[in-house]
Amino acid sequence: MVQERIAALRSRMKEEGVDAYLVPTDDFHASEYVGDYFKCRKYITGFTGSAGTAVITQDMAGLWTDGRYFIQAAKQLEGSGVTLFKMGEPGVPTIQEFLEEKLGDGECLGFDGRTVSTKEGRELQETLAKKGASVNGGLDLVGDIWKDRPALSCEPVMELDVKWAGESRASKIDKIRKTMQEQGADLFLLTSLDDIAWLLNIRGGDIHCCPVVLSYLVMTGEELLLFANEKAFPDTVKQALAADGVSFCPYNDIYEYVSKLPAGKKVLLNRNKVNSRLNALIPENVSVLDQENPTLLPKAVKNPVEVENERIAHIKDGVALTKFIYWLKTNAGKLPITELSAGEKLYELRSEQENFMGNSFDPIISYGAHAAIVHYSATPETDIPVEPHGLLLADTGGHYLEGSTDTTRTIALGPTTDEEKKYFTAVLRGHLNLAAARFRAGTTGLSLDYLARAPLWELGKDFNHGTGHGVGYYLNVHEGPNSFHWKVSPTRRADTPFEVGMITSDEPGYYQEDGFGVRHENLIVCVEDQETECGTFLRFEHLTMVPFDLDAIVPEQMTVRERELLNDYHAQVYEKISPYLDEEERAWLREATRKI
Amino acid sequence: MVQERIAALRSRMKEEGVDAYLVPTDDFHASEYVGDYFKCRKYITGFTGSAGTAVITQDMAGLWTDGRYFIQAAKQLEGSGVTLFKMGEPGVPTIQEFLEEKLGDGECLGFDGRTVSTKEGRELQETLAKKGASVNGGLDLVGDIWKDRPALSCEPVMELDVKWAGESRASKIDKIRKTMQEQGADLFLLTSLDDIAWLLNIRGGDIHCCPVVLSYLVMTGEELLLFANEKAFPDTVKQALAADGVSFCPYNDIYEYVSKLPAGKKVLLNRNKVNSRLNALIPENVSVLDQENPTLLPKAVKNPVEVENERIAHIKDGVALTKFIYWLKTNAGKLPITELSAGEKLYELRSEQENFMGNSFDPIISYGAHAAIVHYSATPETDIPVEPHGLLLADTGGHYLEGSTDTTRTIALGPTTDEEKKYFTAVLRGHLNLAAARFRAGTTGLSLDYLARAPLWELGKDFNHGTGHGVGYYLNVHEGPNSFHWKVSPTRRADTPFEVGMITSDEPGYYQEDGFGVRHENLIVCVEDQETECGTFLRFEHLTMVPFDLDAIVPEQMTVRERELLNDYHAQVYEKISPYLDEEERAWLREATRKI
Repeated sequence: MVQERIAALRSRMKEEGVDAYLVPTDDFHASEYVGDYFKCRKYITGFTGSAGTAVITQDMAGLWTDGRYFIQAAKQLEGSGVTLFKMGEPGVPTIQEFLEEKLGDGECLGFDGRTVSTKEGRELQETLAKKGASVNGGLDLVGDIWKDRPALSCEPVMELDVKWAGESRASKIDKIRKTMQEQGADLFLLTSLDDIAWLLNIRGGDIHCCPVVLSYLVMTGEELLLFANEKAFPDTVKQALAADGVSFCPYNDIYEYVSKLPAGKKVLLNRNKVNSRLNALIPENVSVLDQENPTLLPKAVKNPVEVENERIAHIKDGVALTKFIYWLKTNAGKLPITELSAGEKLYELRSEQENFMGNSFDPIISYGAHAAIVHYSATPETDIPVEPHGLLLADTGGHYLEGSTDTTRTIALGPTTDEEKKYFTAVLRGHLNLAAARFRAGTTGLSLDYLARAPLWELGKDFNHGTGHGVGYYLNVHEGPNSFHWKVSPTRRADTPFEVGMITSDEPGYYQEDGFGVRHENLIVCVEDQETECGTFLRFEHLTMVPFDLDAIVPEQMTVRERELLNDYHAQVYEKISPYLDEEERAWLREATRKI
Repeated sequence: MVQERIAALRSRMKEEGVDAYLVPTDDFHASEYVGDYFKCRKYITGFTGSAGTAVITQDMAGLWTDGRYFIQAAKQLEGSGVTLFKMGEPGVPTIQEFLEEKLGDGECLGFDGRTVSTKEGRELQETLAKKGASVNGGLDLVGDIWKDRPALSCEPVMELDVKWAGESRASKIDKIRKTMQEQGADLFLLTSLDDIAWLLNIRGGDIHCCPVVLSYLVMTGEELLLFANEKAFPDTVKQALAADGVSFCPYNDIYEYVSKLPAGKKVLLNRNKVNSRLNALIPENVSVLDQENPTLLPKAVKNPVEVENERIAHIKDGVALTKFIYWLKTNAGKLPITELSAGEKLYELRSEQENFMGNSFDPIISYGAHAAIVHYSATPETDIPVEPHGLLLADTGGHYLEGSTDTTRTIALGPTTDEEKKYFTAVLRGHLNLAAARFRAGTTGLSLDYLARAPLWELGKDFNHGTGHGVGYYLNVHEGPNSFHWKVSPTRRADTPFEVGMITSDEPGYYQEDGFGVRHENLIVCVEDQETECGTFLRFEHLTMVPFDLDAIVPEQMTVRERELLNDYHAQVYEKISPYLDEEERAWLREATRKI
């Protein structure tokens, strides 16, 4: 089937004079996850992973993907005639290198410029120009041959009341307009879906687990044009938006609108977010102010209402997770439980909570050696029963009207080895020390990450992912710009300092291949610590309220202070969660949060 | 006198059609300290501080300097007619802002482009172009009126034997030529004095405390042209240089040489280091590869011979400092000792050590409240006697053929207050924790700085300087690119990761205005910790071997681990230093390095 599709694509390529065709994973908004309409790369290769890019020529079809997906991709590409390019492996060319080698004078690379960022598009153009080859980003050749392509998602849109959002749409719009004025911008072009949802206080369901609305937004001093499918908006929402000056335009009309921007205007946009086709359509006599979206920082800095709501969301979520852990530890080996069925059980428990709106991402519940695969997510093919020994890792989260959660607990289902306990304890020490940091305003995640890694680095171990990411308010579970990480790159911009109200995950881990995996993750919110003559000092508070499994902890491997930090945290967990448990669960939680 | 000089300058300005004249502090090489020949700013204003810039117009003379020098500058400018501009104070314009306001269409700013970096020169040009004003960097108007200007320094040059340098000149030259080739450069223009001294294995004395040689260097694939005063070089050194292909040109001929570079050549240089006049003289048909000097990293990464020598230098220096501390603690209140006389005593003790070449910087010996002034350096006017109570801070260092040292000890001369002890202990905890870091290769100082500040930040306190800087090998005591710091700026380039062999200072402090000051500084060298399947792990080792004063430490305020770190360090100090002490001193050191 893939072979037929590629053959059809090659015919279209010939018709369009395209010698190589690039199929990325992105939607038109540089979203982290994409809706079914946008899954062209999956359609043309059969590979279902969340990251990868296909390149098709008349004599070759290739798929580039990273280490997480080497095994899965190899399996899914079997018999398709598509060659797997293992990114980062020695001797494997990058896509740019491949295209530079492949395309010669007068040849053309085609792609859908809506799925390629402005930056990437430029790099491709510059690379190929050296060879005399050109690019054409005005195509959608996979779309042309995709007969049964799903329709663009049009899930119903809801308004997020100010009692949840903490700030009215009008107030947010006002602030962004002020920033525009300060920067001398006539127009602000916003294409990232979570920014639009945040700004307009709307939520939708156009991307799996991401409550966003497919749309583009144009803001001027007077107008607010929302390019979206009006059908998704109930009348009450439309009226509310209209009252704040928002008018609708058809989703795809943004391209024509941008191409007709009047001469001399100054457009504020973020080239890392705006797709290359939109960017290419901006008339030459319009000047571009390429900056971070002014929505990014106010979205990341949760207001006091949002923070108070998040505390409530985390208590609800903590109740569901605590019940889940109790159920798992009590029933492992007695009831038939698998990774997938455990996920369903947890979903049920979350569903019992008021204002639960769904998973904030697909649950990662991985047992035993599966937990050593960082991006493992059980499928019916890989699903295994849990047994009454060893560790189970559960990285899950929920959306509530009161905010989004993202929690990882590693749970001992019975006896665990000394090795498992050793790393369980080391990772927990890092987690606790990072959350306990007290630091001057101006500090970034780069300065604090060491706290989470030190116990592992002392053992010559590490984990191959960031230590934490920002989290949206009933919005995307990965949200910038706040984060914890240690690697620097010469091209990377300086990090954003923490501000009061930012919510970040704290999630160090350890993964022993074919053995076991440990990760401990809480969301922590930045709060003020003290104001002195030396400046403002900040710290974090735990939002997540779920016990860490004392069964897998070696107290002697922790410092006095680390044990105090754990005991203090557990006292909070018991205080906040126990009122919502039945007697049996409560008795268990008391023991599970005992002082060590 | 200053007024007469300014009047003379104003006449010259009129003759040259210059409406404002800028006088920076720099020499022609962007050196941190400058020789007497270059002290034009001091000559024209009377202000002797190490940082500041003068601007003279027909109706105004101004001096810009930073917070360290507000008091001193105000005093020195009294009666001179020069206005003090306190940099960073609210309402005080920057020099750029001042000039932009002051200069109008057709007017001209003059300066000696040899004393202004390429980057600064460009910024001035761009700012003034907006107003229709121009710049002229081809002048030296202060030089023109400075009748008794000191001659350019011409201190004798010595060769640094390979037994000290660890790598031959030929080998270093080879490596840099390879880098040039890789980057496609025909020519490498090097103007920073410590890089030239490092590359050629020569040392001089043209800057106070900095054993460098006034020179410019041009390297091609075949040639090595050293633009310097040949008279400073003994015949043996000249012969040795000639044997490695180095030819001499007069110091000032570099400007003509650069202006005649053949068309089409590619010149590698660092625009942050090369002065703006040199840069402006590069013909337009010559292309510039603006990069970090390829000498920077190999200079910072000490080779194994250098590291072993440094250990020896630090034992010698440790002996001198230990004897000094013993002498001070024993004689405070008994002998007449002042800040300055203590510095002389320490110099004497260092001079007793073989291969001692002089101070690596002017000693900072500050007693009591003086120690709270971070950049205090005693003068005959400020000098005070030390008394048998409170804290004395001694930040001093020496040059040896075996390397350069930079050590700070805070010494209790008798009873100290609880407050003094509290911060003495907190700063020491930070110092020890940073030095004990174990981290993955790729980590920069930005990721580790928190360790040094955490104990203070928890108390709502901080110190207003970086935590550490790189140190040269019998060369500049401040040397990049390695450092410890926590502040990020959006424009700053990413930091350089630590490498095995880098030597960095670890010097947190605490300063209580009008009270006391504490700083603890060791030099630490980066070494390999372990190599595992997760990568290469690094750590530091203390080079400095001098006891920390247990009389001012509160052991109960330290963790078990911190006490262990201190005890381990003190055991090393005793082992390495005691063999070189007399019996009395040794007995004292045994007690001073006892376990706590």
